[in-house]
Amino acid sequence: MARYFEYIDQHKERFEQELFDLLRIPSISAVSSNKGDVRQAAEFIREQFDQMGLNGVQLFETPGNPVVYGEYMDAGRDKPTVLVYGHYDVQPPDPLELWETEPFEPTVRNGDVYARGASDDKGQAYTHVKAIESWLKTEGRLPVNVKVIIEGEEEIGSPNLVPFLQEHKEMLACDMVLISDTSMFDKDVPSITYGLRGLAYMQVYVQGPNRDLHSGTYGGAVQNPLNALCEIIAGLKDKDGVVQIPGFYDDVIALSDEERAESARLPFDEQAFKDSLAIGQVFGEKGYTTLERKSSRPTLDVNGIWGGYQGEGAKTVLPAKAGAKISMRLVPDQDPKKIAALFTRYVHQIAPAGVTVVVEEHHGGHAAMTDLNFYGLEAASQAFEDVYGRKPLFTREGGSIPIVADFKKVLGADSILMGFGLNSDAIHSPNEKFSLEDFHRGIKTSARFFEVLAGVKA
Amino acid sequence: MARYFEYIDQHKERFEQELFDLLRIPSISAVSSNKGDVRQAAEFIREQFDQMGLNGVQLFETPGNPVVYGEYMDAGRDKPTVLVYGHYDVQPPDPLELWETEPFEPTVRNGDVYARGASDDKGQAYTHVKAIESWLKTEGRLPVNVKVIIEGEEEIGSPNLVPFLQEHKEMLACDMVLISDTSMFDKDVPSITYGLRGLAYMQVYVQGPNRDLHSGTYGGAVQNPLNALCEIIAGLKDKDGVVQIPGFYDDVIALSDEERAESARLPFDEQAFKDSLAIGQVFGEKGYTTLERKSSRPTLDVNGIWGGYQGEGAKTVLPAKAGAKISMRLVPDQDPKKIAALFTRYVHQIAPAGVTVVVEEHHGGHAAMTDLNFYGLEAASQAFEDVYGRKPLFTREGGSIPIVADFKKVLGADSILMGFGLNSDAIHSPNEKFSLEDFHRGIKTSARFFEVLAGVKA
Repeated sequence: MARYFEYIDQHKERFEQELFDLLRIPSISAVSSNKGDVRQAAEFIREQFDQMGLNGVQLFETPGNPVVYGEYMDAGRDKPTVLVYGHYDVQPPDPLELWETEPFEPTVRNGDVYARGASDDKGQAYTHVKAIESWLKTEGRLPVNVKVIIEGEEEIGSPNLVPFLQEHKEMLACDMVLISDTSMFDKDVPSITYGLRGLAYMQVYVQGPNRDLHSGTYGGAVQNPLNALCEIIAGLKDKDGVVQIPGFYDDVIALSDEERAESARLPFDEQAFKDSLAIGQVFGEKGYTTLERKSSRPTLDVNGIWGGYQGEGAKTVLPAKAGAKISMRLVPDQDPKKIAALFTRYVHQIAPAGVTVVVEEHHGGHAAMTDLNFYGLEAASQAFEDVYGRKPLFTREGGSIPIVADFKKVLGADSILMGFGLNSDAIHSPNEKFSLEDFHRGIKTSARFFEVLAGVKA
Repeated sequence: MARYFEYIDQHKERFEQELFDLLRIPSISAVSSNKGDVRQAAEFIREQFDQMGLNGVQLFETPGNPVVYGEYMDAGRDKPTVLVYGHYDVQPPDPLELWETEPFEPTVRNGDVYARGASDDKGQAYTHVKAIESWLKTEGRLPVNVKVIIEGEEEIGSPNLVPFLQEHKEMLACDMVLISDTSMFDKDVPSITYGLRGLAYMQVYVQGPNRDLHSGTYGGAVQNPLNALCEIIAGLKDKDGVVQIPGFYDDVIALSDEERAESARLPFDEQAFKDSLAIGQVFGEKGYTTLERKSSRPTLDVNGIWGGYQGEGAKTVLPAKAGAKISMRLVPDQDPKKIAALFTRYVHQIAPAGVTVVVEEHHGGHAAMTDLNFYGLEAASQAFEDVYGRKPLFTREGGSIPIVADFKKVLGADSILMGFGLNSDAIHSPNEKFSLEDFHRGIKTSARFFEVLAGVKA
């Protein structure tokens, strides 16, 4: 057995404890009051890089949160260069009351560690950090050239990463990008994601009267911003789940018959899916399967809504304003900017009389697809097989990692999405978790990938 | 000038200070944590009754908040008996950030006192308390028999008042009920409200998956409770503001041509109305005027809505659940229970697939109308004219005072709605206020009313 495998087994405990330390840092990028915690997480990673012996380690400042960088470039010119990418920031933990244990106090239950960021993405990103350490501490080298960037703004749309990539184009030059921020198809069923959805995230504000009104004194004579907002949102999709925004589907690349056939062959159990969510039936765009709906077709979902009295009891108020966060998952070749513009125009168009509507654009990102014949995927597939004992499936995922498209655009590099998480990890939800077994298998798969890649012909 | 008028002028300052003390008590009946404050307000009124020399003063306990009682029954059998009603509980003050000064620290600006409850109903109810005091302290008597009940649950639908009325039917026997919990038509334009709307207040919960989901991993394949809730709410009214619930209008008594003509004659300035609310245009049920829409026609308004992420930034979540508070203002002869049942059935009927919907009924109340020929109204009209120097207008108001219908049903007594507030008082809104001039004119009008009533023939 390779010495780095032995090393990974010997340091199992320490690797877990280090991960838990990282998970204790509430590095929530969406909440400005957590800025200090976000930086602390960056410093934590930087120290790791120094200790394991990476070169050129440093925190690159950005207008937002810093990017942690480290590299090993002594494998030789003839060896490929892998850019490892991950993020140390996390989603907000609310609704807090639904967490069984504290979101920032990692707790292990039946082999899973529960904490915000456990799977998305601290736990997964950390597999590569420990894989690199295992090589350097046992062989004193890496078989391929490796550059690592761990950023702190992925959960808010990586607003400063593209400028960073452009500014350090040479430093970051690579043959491929390695990312673990996706899920395996199922427990013990490794998969490699070759397609990701894009995102357009909007915020809609509806303003009615200049103050909250008594619903008896004014009700019936004044447009209610809450009713108006609901009317707008209801107008965005029809009963068949089809988005009604004119032009929304214009640039969508239709699923090929092969793709639909491939997708239909995947071992997906719809009843188990419904049971795991406790829903009586699935719902989505008419004419597509559940797998297609959640991975290969565009969507529109309300992520949050507010307005009026949300407290205990009954308050007879006609509220002055209301708001909602609405996001759309996109597929090739939808353009986030164009979709955001179409959304904005349509919302104004269907807004009822008597209210003022303001639409703001949060972050967005392009969908991405990696060529299935890319040699990096071949090496990744082999590494998975060597560690998990079975060939990985190749799938498309519904989530968005906008920077995958940016890596292609700016660095010309394809991404290898080597996911070690599970869809049941409840990322972005209360009680997020990550399997410690997959944490260790992930470290081994990453370490093995470097070795296989060194031998694969480009 | 009557001695009680002199007394009222002499004690102006003290009356205001006493009112401010009452306004400092955050007696919010909708919030259970304010239970102690609610009781404190009741004790405050009780002490007032004792000090001014009312008889039979006591706090009647209920399953909820106590009813304060006091009476003067020595005017003689031949004199009418007036039951004065008011409430010492108030609406929640939120949104707090929109208050220019603390909601429970009364502040005087250009002759108005700003505080939650200033107009609804502490300030208005207090006018009668001080009117009675003025008679007793100057004449040592009242010209008519008077009973006073001030309750503490009006803002949550007076759940315990009807049982109280039934239990103390004899004690509360009266010829009429006097209530000041409405508004004058306009500043210096006194009016008597002869019609009030009823209310049916509902809460709708929509449950989707068993936990918040990642909108990328699951979006498109699972019904989103927020989208579903908006679809339901949008289905409750059409674009013309007409409620779509089958049977909703069945029991509505149509406005007579006279009533519509009367209403059209009222000095209502629609442009001023729009300007005061900073709305570009009014909106309501097609085929009716603004005055009719806000006073004589039934309505449906969302009072509050919530679900998903409401915080800063963008959270890509597909929420597990959503909820809304929805209330309907009713007119004769709509029955709140029947309307609530129709609402519930219709909501379930139009609820989209993939979610579970639960509908709960908060409090409700019947609409009420007082016969315009009632002799009590004649006396009230005279009192207004003597104090304000002009005859009051007779109007219908959009608000609800459900117990007005209950007084008629249980005690067989018509109510005289002697409003001293203004629609611009912002009741149920931030910066609620009450004109101190009208506070004093109200005390005089009430005191004068007792005297006129003693002479009017039934």
